[in-house]
Amino acid sequence: MSIQITGLTTLPEIKHGDSLATLIREAAVRENQVVGRATIVVVAQKIVSKAEGAVVDLSTIEPGPFASRWAEQWGRDARLIELILRQSKRIVRMDHGILIAETLHGFVAANAGVDLSNAGADNQAILLPVNPDASAHLLRDELGCGAVLITDTFGRAWREGLVNVAIGVSGIDALEDLRGARDRGGHLLQATVIARADELASAAGLVMPKAAGIPAALIEGLKWTPSEGSARPLIRAAALDLFR
Amino acid sequence: MSIQITGLTTLPEIKHGDSLATLIREAAVRENQVVGRATIVVVAQKIVSKAEGAVVDLSTIEPGPFASRWAEQWGRDARLIELILRQSKRIVRMDHGILIAETLHGFVAANAGVDLSNAGADNQAILLPVNPDASAHLLRDELGCGAVLITDTFGRAWREGLVNVAIGVSGIDALEDLRGARDRGGHLLQATVIARADELASAAGLVMPKAAGIPAALIEGLKWTPSEGSARPLIRAAALDLFR
Repeated sequence: MSIQITGLTTLPEIKHGDSLATLIREAAVRENQVVGRATIVVVAQKIVSKAEGAVVDLSTIEPGPFASRWAEQWGRDARLIELILRQSKRIVRMDHGILIAETLHGFVAANAGVDLSNAGADNQAILLPVNPDASAHLLRDELGCGAVLITDTFGRAWREGLVNVAIGVSGIDALEDLRGARDRGGHLLQATVIARADELASAAGLVMPKAAGIPAALIEGLKWTPSEGSARPLIRAAALDLFR
Repeated sequence: MSIQITGLTTLPEIKHGDSLATLIREAAVRENQVVGRATIVVVAQKIVSKAEGAVVDLSTIEPGPFASRWAEQWGRDARLIELILRQSKRIVRMDHGILIAETLHGFVAANAGVDLSNAGADNQAILLPVNPDASAHLLRDELGCGAVLITDTFGRAWREGLVNVAIGVSGIDALEDLRGARDRGGHLLQATVIARADELASAAGLVMPKAAGIPAALIEGLKWTPSEGSARPLIRAAALDLFR
């Protein structure tokens, strides 16, 4: 069993209104890659948001008193904090200047996934796509590939370092449920639900280094049962979450 | 930039005292794989523990009153709970029958990483290796490969599903620190420390499905600066952890 992961290195800077499918197909041709029915296409959230126009000029944001007070206390930009609050359903932690929030989709992420770097201009903040699953479904349709993952780098509890995870999924079950299966010793596999979409996202993260500006990757060689797909099963229900 | 990940499918069942290096080298030869200076060898914790004899017969464990009471309350095996407590430095959560603990190494994991499945016999519990970095260093020496990761599947806060993560690292920095680097728009990359060892572990997890009994994988194609390596930098200091 062998998997090949290839970063697409020739994608141009993405602008609002661009067709990601067209640009990815053109880059793949330039790079002698084939996007076929067995290909999983992994796309960084940032270029999906840029193409969809999910970018906000901070100078248009009027911070409220709560955002202003907290930003001043921790030396952060009050307009950015206000924007993060607007993208949040719930604050999970706000300590030491760190703001970890549950996004409107339900993902738990630092700054509710709002990002300043590489926005193409100062004062530009990039939001998460409004509906990453829908973006993934559309892109899969347009590319005719096997699956699409839209990914972002998130921090974790307990462990240092960011890892690339899936926030939009199309064409593959995000979770692989092995409960009831047996290992080769004949023992029932317990508590064995694997976050396959996140493992795929992390694998792609290895060939999508931020500094190199490689915002998409192709994965070949995985065998899976096709399905509609969604990133929602990756979100632990708040009521079941011991850390929210 | 392209990475290839291959699961080793012909490793035998591992027993106490086995030389993993010898068995991995033999499996690679059988499968026409080369383990060279640029190869990252990923090994599931379970076979490292088995080879090192980090296996406990539950019938030898006399549970204390705390383990007995909690096990009875939640319908769990008191001997296993006692064993988990002995492997723990600190309990992070014990709710709803779920026991999340900080292991003696500092990893936060369900059941302190103690595992019952596929132990080769009933009543056998597999512990984490005593010193996974040392196990990784030894294996790298013996194999003459570029890096070794020892991995286990851990749950996460906020997200469903397990992912494969690194608990022992040799030959590569576990964290890739991009702070101070600039993206291609010229913006400073902030808060950008990538948990590369965990992304590699997750990538390998894709070709090491538990049910298929594939406990090792080879990764080719990654470029990195060789270093001593350790999994310790992946552990967030308890004082800095908002979720412990």
